[in-house]
Amino acid sequence: MQAAQLLEPGRFEIRDVATPVAGEGQVLLKVVGAGMCGSDVHLVRHPPKALPLPLTLGHETTGRVVELGPGVTGLTAGDAVLVAGIWSCGTCPACAEGRDNACSFWATRTAVPPGPGLGHPGGMAEYMVAPARSLVPLGDLDPVTAAPLADAGIVPSHAISLARRQLRPDATAVVIGVGGLGHLAVQILRATTACRIVALDVDDDRLAAALDHGADVTLRSEQAAEALLDLTDGLGANAVFDFVGTDGTLEIARSTVATYGAIVIVGLGGGTLQVHAAPAPVKRQSGLPWGVSVQRPYGATRRDIAEVIALAVAGRITAHVQAFPLHAAPEVLQRLEQGHVHGRAVLLPNGPTA
Amino acid sequence: MQAAQLLEPGRFEIRDVATPVAGEGQVLLKVVGAGMCGSDVHLVRHPPKALPLPLTLGHETTGRVVELGPGVTGLTAGDAVLVAGIWSCGTCPACAEGRDNACSFWATRTAVPPGPGLGHPGGMAEYMVAPARSLVPLGDLDPVTAAPLADAGIVPSHAISLARRQLRPDATAVVIGVGGLGHLAVQILRATTACRIVALDVDDDRLAAALDHGADVTLRSEQAAEALLDLTDGLGANAVFDFVGTDGTLEIARSTVATYGAIVIVGLGGGTLQVHAAPAPVKRQSGLPWGVSVQRPYGATRRDIAEVIALAVAGRITAHVQAFPLHAAPEVLQRLEQGHVHGRAVLLPNGPTA
Amino acid sequence: MQAAQLLEPGRFEIRDVATPVAGEGQVLLKVVGAGMCGSDVHLVRHPPKALPLPLTLGHETTGRVVELGPGVTGLTAGDAVLVAGIWSCGTCPACAEGRDNACSFWATRTAVPPGPGLGHPGGMAEYMVAPARSLVPLGDLDPVTAAPLADAGIVPSHAISLARRQLRPDATAVVIGVGGLGHLAVQILRATTACRIVALDVDDDRLAAALDHGADVTLRSEQAAEALLDLTDGLGANAVFDFVGTDGTLEIARSTVATYGAIVIVGLGGGTLQVHAAPAPVKRQSGLPWGVSVQRPYGATRRDIAEVIALAVAGRITAHVQAFPLHAAPEVLQRLEQGHVHGRAVLLPNGPTA
Amino acid sequence: MQAAQLLEPGRFEIRDVATPVAGEGQVLLKVVGAGMCGSDVHLVRHPPKALPLPLTLGHETTGRVVELGPGVTGLTAGDAVLVAGIWSCGTCPACAEGRDNACSFWATRTAVPPGPGLGHPGGMAEYMVAPARSLVPLGDLDPVTAAPLADAGIVPSHAISLARRQLRPDATAVVIGVGGLGHLAVQILRATTACRIVALDVDDDRLAAALDHGADVTLRSEQAAEALLDLTDGLGANAVFDFVGTDGTLEIARSTVATYGAIVIVGLGGGTLQVHAAPAPVKRQSGLPWGVSVQRPYGATRRDIAEVIALAVAGRITAHVQAFPLHAAPEVLQRLEQGHVHGRAVLLPNGPTA
Repeated sequence: MQAAQLLEPGRFEIRDVATPVAGEGQVLLKVVGAGMCGSDVHLVRHPPKALPLPLTLGHETTGRVVELGPGVTGLTAGDAVLVAGIWSCGTCPACAEGRDNACSFWATRTAVPPGPGLGHPGGMAEYMVAPARSLVPLGDLDPVTAAPLADAGIVPSHAISLARRQLRPDATAVVIGVGGLGHLAVQILRATTACRIVALDVDDDRLAAALDHGADVTLRSEQAAEALLDLTDGLGANAVFDFVGTDGTLEIARSTVATYGAIVIVGLGGGTLQVHAAPAPVKRQSGLPWGVSVQRPYGATRRDIAEVIALAVAGRITAHVQAFPLHAAPEVLQRLEQGHVHGRAVLLPNGPTA
Repeated sequence: MQAAQLLEPGRFEIRDVATPVAGEGQVLLKVVGAGMCGSDVHLVRHPPKALPLPLTLGHETTGRVVELGPGVTGLTAGDAVLVAGIWSCGTCPACAEGRDNACSFWATRTAVPPGPGLGHPGGMAEYMVAPARSLVPLGDLDPVTAAPLADAGIVPSHAISLARRQLRPDATAVVIGVGGLGHLAVQILRATTACRIVALDVDDDRLAAALDHGADVTLRSEQAAEALLDLTDGLGANAVFDFVGTDGTLEIARSTVATYGAIVIVGLGGGTLQVHAAPAPVKRQSGLPWGVSVQRPYGATRRDIAEVIALAVAGRITAHVQAFPLHAAPEVLQRLEQGHVHGRAVLLPNGPTA
Repeated sequence: MQAAQLLEPGRFEIRDVATPVAGEGQVLLKVVGAGMCGSDVHLVRHPPKALPLPLTLGHETTGRVVELGPGVTGLTAGDAVLVAGIWSCGTCPACAEGRDNACSFWATRTAVPPGPGLGHPGGMAEYMVAPARSLVPLGDLDPVTAAPLADAGIVPSHAISLARRQLRPDATAVVIGVGGLGHLAVQILRATTACRIVALDVDDDRLAAALDHGADVTLRSEQAAEALLDLTDGLGANAVFDFVGTDGTLEIARSTVATYGAIVIVGLGGGTLQVHAAPAPVKRQSGLPWGVSVQRPYGATRRDIAEVIALAVAGRITAHVQAFPLHAAPEVLQRLEQGHVHGRAVLLPNGPTA
Repeated sequence: MQAAQLLEPGRFEIRDVATPVAGEGQVLLKVVGAGMCGSDVHLVRHPPKALPLPLTLGHETTGRVVELGPGVTGLTAGDAVLVAGIWSCGTCPACAEGRDNACSFWATRTAVPPGPGLGHPGGMAEYMVAPARSLVPLGDLDPVTAAPLADAGIVPSHAISLARRQLRPDATAVVIGVGGLGHLAVQILRATTACRIVALDVDDDRLAAALDHGADVTLRSEQAAEALLDLTDGLGANAVFDFVGTDGTLEIARSTVATYGAIVIVGLGGGTLQVHAAPAPVKRQSGLPWGVSVQRPYGATRRDIAEVIALAVAGRITAHVQAFPLHAAPEVLQRLEQGHVHGRAVLLPNGPTA
């Protein structure tokens, strides 16, 4: 079968490889959609040393069940499923309570994360195998548009769940960066809360789209800090979700979050937020207000995935998708580097009608 | 009456002042115990500009009710009470749900916090007035030993409440610095959880006391990081409470906290913890594990105070107290600066039998 | 001034009474809207022995601030406010954490509840006094349409808050009875969750309105049980809110709730739900599934009120109101008894433009 | 091998059966301890129709790993493990978040629960097989004394977890019935909370033991109701755990629980608690106070099991065990019926040194 593989740093090609076979506890899938995003660009350019090359990339995958490995029950050939991006152990204390993204096995490993397109062959291929317990049924949801939800949907959903108790009807939530993940964050906030949603971006088109997705207020990032304090009578926002993560956006988060509010950092833009062991400043010129929690979530749980699928099935969230054939993968990588993809890029290794 | 007042930066003296009168919603108290701590040293040396001088210090106060101002009910002359250190508004959304320490009024003020010994005359005097709603009944608890609980007890209690869901029986909690607040944190953790408690300090006497207070393991801070990872099979601690807050202790917290664990910074030692918007490092040489929440709590709520009093009444926590007469206040300040106080210093403005 | 008073059982009349004066901690209000509901009918027909007669009724009140009693700050003449229906003590452990509806003072009283129109003169009058801490600002919200929110809005909001963790996007919530409180419950669920909302009633017009208010599915109560199990693949509903409370509706709740789901009983229709200390039946012919929580909430907290006001300000919930002059109060009572009121009845003691 | 099997209603015998083989995802265990309790008596006397007879009983099992079936990793021969009593599916939404005891598969089954000694051969045999995901490592814990924890430890632990937010240091918890499960409930409450623990029983020896286990107050059930209200200033207990479940004990729970408190019914004594859709009575002569939650938990989660093991490893809880050889199983059943077992009965199918 055909697969898009990383061979060595910077070398990402379509290759002919053997079709995999489902081992014990595994399932063979015919891939429908394989999302492709900035993480893939980063992997191709700067693969961790421990990455087992050559490696089929693809961590945002949907597919249809072809064959069940020994010991697998509860799935039927033809079922549409989403492949969780974290293949957790299932038995450690964290997994025992459903916190797959805090799996002890993975937390103490020194090598690459145990997920598709990272430690194991991913979804940019005609077929893939995955552990049965890492598959979440899609029901009647279209697997093509569902593919990007496997990353761009579930990561915001998990991030929002961390600040759930802040997000009451009289609260203000800020979403910094309403692109790939952020535009879904706005939709999820609108569907699951009644709080005031303020979208920040440097791109007016994205801000206009955010209004359509349910934002109550949009602000250009440049003027955001002052405007946010005005909007909230000086109290600041109860939760700030930063999908960018540069020094600039973290400074907006710092200077606009409320006392005992939440800053959730999703974007990995390389910025730094400094938490000082010192009294909170009376004015906001520096430092954090008292009680603010700062957290940088990782991936999502299977529970988060089930909720995102439910939202998509109910039509409450939609990912904007641009589809490509598998053989275009190297080209799509370049487009992503250049910012020339509209919506989320999804490869269709078995064509548009798989 | 006599009061220990700050007159100008560095000038802290016993003075004769008028006995206050309880206004509407206020209560006149005969002070029993007035705790004195490092915060007072800081206030005397570096008072904020907005501090209304001269000011009677004292933010850790117990007393007995003398007279109720107009409109006050539910208290009787002679009742022993603890004075909450945050005089919140009582009506803003935060106060409406009991989060006095996130009071919107205080959060958006630009001047000094509305509490005794800060924005209002405090407890280092024979008498003081306080709002009725900021008094918590002590029941049969001895008001002398209870005085330091008003700060050193309730602040750790609130800090621990923020990480409550991490503190299950199979969890590990680390207390960095087992002095004034930390030794009570150990006691509160022991009384309210079954988790493994690891005490860290640079002082062997304090570590020995921590064992008596319920710690399961004590470590010299110097060797703590490696030992903690050994103890936890490499997973790290579920919650780290830092009562010091220097760069050194924050680095211990950073390098020993577990994935999705909690770092609660109570000590205001001037250190900085950096949160990077970047992937968690696979090894712990830098950066935070994924999912860690970092929070720097402020004071406590009236609910926290009620719980600390219940713990003290039940004999589950005890503050080690060194008592002084009111007129010794300037001398005690010097002792505190020099580290020559054993346990918590408490002034007794009306003598030991008040 | 004019007031609608209960003089003795069954005798409810408009009378001329003295205009009240705001005491310490109290506020004098010019009443704008005074909601009137089935509870008032019950009070008139069957007043508790302890009720202090004559009594001005009215527990769902909005008004404008006229004068502040001694010691009151933070409000200004002309401010529109909603009067909380539970005048809690503010200092007991429950009140200290904002659970006004579990106030210890009220819980251990043997007489009538300390609220307007119950233990104190209520809102069916031109003026009333209320404790400052029981007033929640309405901001720009119209006080006429806001009046019924003081009961019909906040009670469902509090009920829903008790089952909040059940109400995830893949959950099913059932609202039994979509009249006065239930139609607001549907709106609040729609605004604050993405779960599937199933509305049950015996009145087709109400079911049609429920669809407009955001219900996903409507069912005639008669066929509801079987249909609900079909809808949920036999699992049942995650939360059932019963706004009727007869044996019939409680049987629907019992037979359709999921394992570890929630039954919240708001309607006081006199029915009984039996919880057996016996294994859950394998089929649903009798008994509750394992783990179900059964709870019968009381009123609401000031936090609940603030959230309901925020929802109304944002236009996410609307109470359907039928307005009457104060002198019509006795007639409206009769109408309520006969079921001849459309929407919530609101008296306007100072006319429509107050 | 030898096994204690139920052949038909009332016929419980030691028989020679084939040693089982571990299939995919399963593990073969050499049984160390097999707890035996009143549920077994009930099963022998009144087996559900759907029970697959003959059936090896035993739902409280510890053992040592002998052999791993295909696809199983993470365990090693010789490891001591506890066998969870609910063999949940692992993939439904409830299982995905670790709520094994609310597993959808089991909730909608019409036949017997999928657990050892119920739907599958249990631990009263020399060997048994169990799903790998239903095994929880015991570490260094003695598997003999650990056996009864598999039921008598984890069920109270789960029950307590449901009322965790009520169990603050100033709360009162009541344990009704301090026998097999109740005496462990007292120990778990003492280890994990600082609340006041009140133990109720009709047996003075048990009450004396409860004091040793950490109860603060013991009461004969007959005088309990009035004494409890006295102890709590009329407010009642924040949480009542009923390990008996008769009409008499449920009446104690009803009449002593606080407003917004919790009643958790664990004992299946056949009593009934009635929840009326009517106002709470002002006095406690009948009906429940407002806001009380009533819940009847089922089993426990794997997370609960891990916590109980941690408590036992730390020496904070101990089950009092009376050991018997496997061949004594029929006799032990009779003893249990007659109340002639001291502590929890544990069969040792491979002798005391296995």
